[in-house]
Amino acid sequence: MDLRTSYQGTTKRLDGHGNRTVGILQEALQTIDADQPSDIYGNGELIKTFERKMADLLGHEDAVFFPSGTMAQQIALRIWSDEQDNRHVAYHPLCHLEIHEQDGLKELHGIEPVLVGEADRLMTFDDVKALPEVSCLLLELPQREIGGLLPSREELEVICAYAREKGIRLHLDGARLLEVLPYYEASAKEIAQLFDSVYISFYKGLGGVAGAILAGSETFCQKARIWKRRYGGDLISLYPYILSADHYFEQRKDHMATYHAVAKQLARRLNAIPGISTRPLEPVSNMFHLDFNGTKRDVEEQLVQIHQSTGIGIAGYLVEKGSVCATEINVGDSALSISDEELETMFRQLTKVFAEG
Amino acid sequence: MDLRTSYQGTTKRLDGHGNRTVGILQEALQTIDADQPSDIYGNGELIKTFERKMADLLGHEDAVFFPSGTMAQQIALRIWSDEQDNRHVAYHPLCHLEIHEQDGLKELHGIEPVLVGEADRLMTFDDVKALPEVSCLLLELPQREIGGLLPSREELEVICAYAREKGIRLHLDGARLLEVLPYYEASAKEIAQLFDSVYISFYKGLGGVAGAILAGSETFCQKARIWKRRYGGDLISLYPYILSADHYFEQRKDHMATYHAVAKQLARRLNAIPGISTRPLEPVSNMFHLDFNGTKRDVEEQLVQIHQSTGIGIAGYLVEKGSVCATEINVGDSALSISDEELETMFRQLTKVFAEG
Repeated sequence: MDLRTSYQGTTKRLDGHGNRTVGILQEALQTIDADQPSDIYGNGELIKTFERKMADLLGHEDAVFFPSGTMAQQIALRIWSDEQDNRHVAYHPLCHLEIHEQDGLKELHGIEPVLVGEADRLMTFDDVKALPEVSCLLLELPQREIGGLLPSREELEVICAYAREKGIRLHLDGARLLEVLPYYEASAKEIAQLFDSVYISFYKGLGGVAGAILAGSETFCQKARIWKRRYGGDLISLYPYILSADHYFEQRKDHMATYHAVAKQLARRLNAIPGISTRPLEPVSNMFHLDFNGTKRDVEEQLVQIHQSTGIGIAGYLVEKGSVCATEINVGDSALSISDEELETMFRQLTKVFAEG
Repeated sequence: MDLRTSYQGTTKRLDGHGNRTVGILQEALQTIDADQPSDIYGNGELIKTFERKMADLLGHEDAVFFPSGTMAQQIALRIWSDEQDNRHVAYHPLCHLEIHEQDGLKELHGIEPVLVGEADRLMTFDDVKALPEVSCLLLELPQREIGGLLPSREELEVICAYAREKGIRLHLDGARLLEVLPYYEASAKEIAQLFDSVYISFYKGLGGVAGAILAGSETFCQKARIWKRRYGGDLISLYPYILSADHYFEQRKDHMATYHAVAKQLARRLNAIPGISTRPLEPVSNMFHLDFNGTKRDVEEQLVQIHQSTGIGIAGYLVEKGSVCATEINVGDSALSISDEELETMFRQLTKVFAEG
């Protein structure tokens, strides 16, 4: 049996909130009045109320609901590039826009990114000070592709203050903003207000169906709505995503500290097993990357065995990185449903297989 | 009371399938197994099965599900422009891309449209023959903004044959393709196969929530999927739109001849009233535009009165065009629910107000 199939056969998992099924949308719609009017091309109470709610959460004047973060963020960078009349924007080498969007930013806008710092670490204040002239600096909190790392609150504030002083616009890729608030011991507003524009996602830690919010000033959002129309993102009805976003926002917004605590516990136990380690060693959000020593073939075989014997899913995929194989864990409701006893069994088997080989 | 409010208070209407409410999505999900897996970034049985079904319907090799037609059509024109290395595309002066998309095609792609013919009539074979070199010719069937007009089947075929001969790519804006098949007495495939790429919509005559299909060759669709990712249209989950598209496709695809017949009946009766006329005089699909002689203020007042006394909605909005005020009617399930007696009352009152007023 292959890794993916064995993972799909598990009923409990370290990652996520459970299978992505149609039931997720059905649950969100269960208590909605069938007569509630749809949003129509960005108008109507349904969308306006949610946009207002998110603008208030983030402490910005206005917010725009988008079908995707990809669309929202490209548009944010385009608006800042136009405003500053400078097609150079700065972001981390492993920024979503650089590696997951088929170069949409470059192909659709001719925007040329300046990569800040190195791929395998966070950007630093020194990196930012060394930047050439750019219209906008994008920060991603947490930096997902390196395991979900965060700058200290102090470093973050120093970087933001410097950018403001230099007239560089600040955009936050806050796809997982709520997930980092327990670490910063801050409100969404306190972090979001450091930036000129902020994007948050509804299907990561919150576990919705899809959709994103882009927040900023009134003028910024006015422009964002025009670009949303240009992109074909101004759908006649976005309510399937809005209603599910709101439903799971309410359901999970206050669970982020728990997810973070469980992530730290899991990481501590996993790091105690020779041959297994997490990045970062102590998670700063609900996310960490999990590295197994060994070849992909060997590790897959070992994990399939544990999936089958414990019923706990550890990894649905592995990416070979030098001498280790890596996967990503985002702690959510699934991990919370695993009993201490079941976890003990899993750790024992992992130890047996990886440490004692 | 204003026109919009009085219209919203009506329970039966000449236009559409009823109010756009959350119930439309809830109905489509009612019989779906809660455990059915979501599509994931364009993959998975749910999206692949529907794309295959639509490719077969349209007689093309492949099809891609998009959140919107705006996104799908810009991408089609970009692909043909790149292929032909020519940024000029040709379309009608009232093409959706020209008047409803905030110039997305120009702003995102630098594509320069050549407007074919005149705004108030269909483009002709002579107009097409007079074109400069273009990469692609977009035809919209029916031409919505002038009441839903269609070229004869013969004219359509002559234009398409000429474009093919000249190496001009042909794209069909078939948002309402199913709606014109009864007039052409043709299958979707017979019309769609005249074109290199075809877009159809699921929330016009079909009455779904949102979403579009773009069909073409395998190579074309491969490129379209890359652009869909670039646009941020490759959502992690598009199933809310796919499931509702499929549900209402099955429910309404065979009703188009009925909608067309009712549109013709309504138009005949409306044209018999002095001061009221339809464009076209005899509808060629379920659509027609409805013109009332008079100023906007007067016509609104008269329609509010009829809305209130009959409970039948005639127009939710009016656009002033010279000496007339116009609205658009797309016959659907709503008109079918009005009894002959109720219609008689409505025609009597319209006659009284507009002819004898």
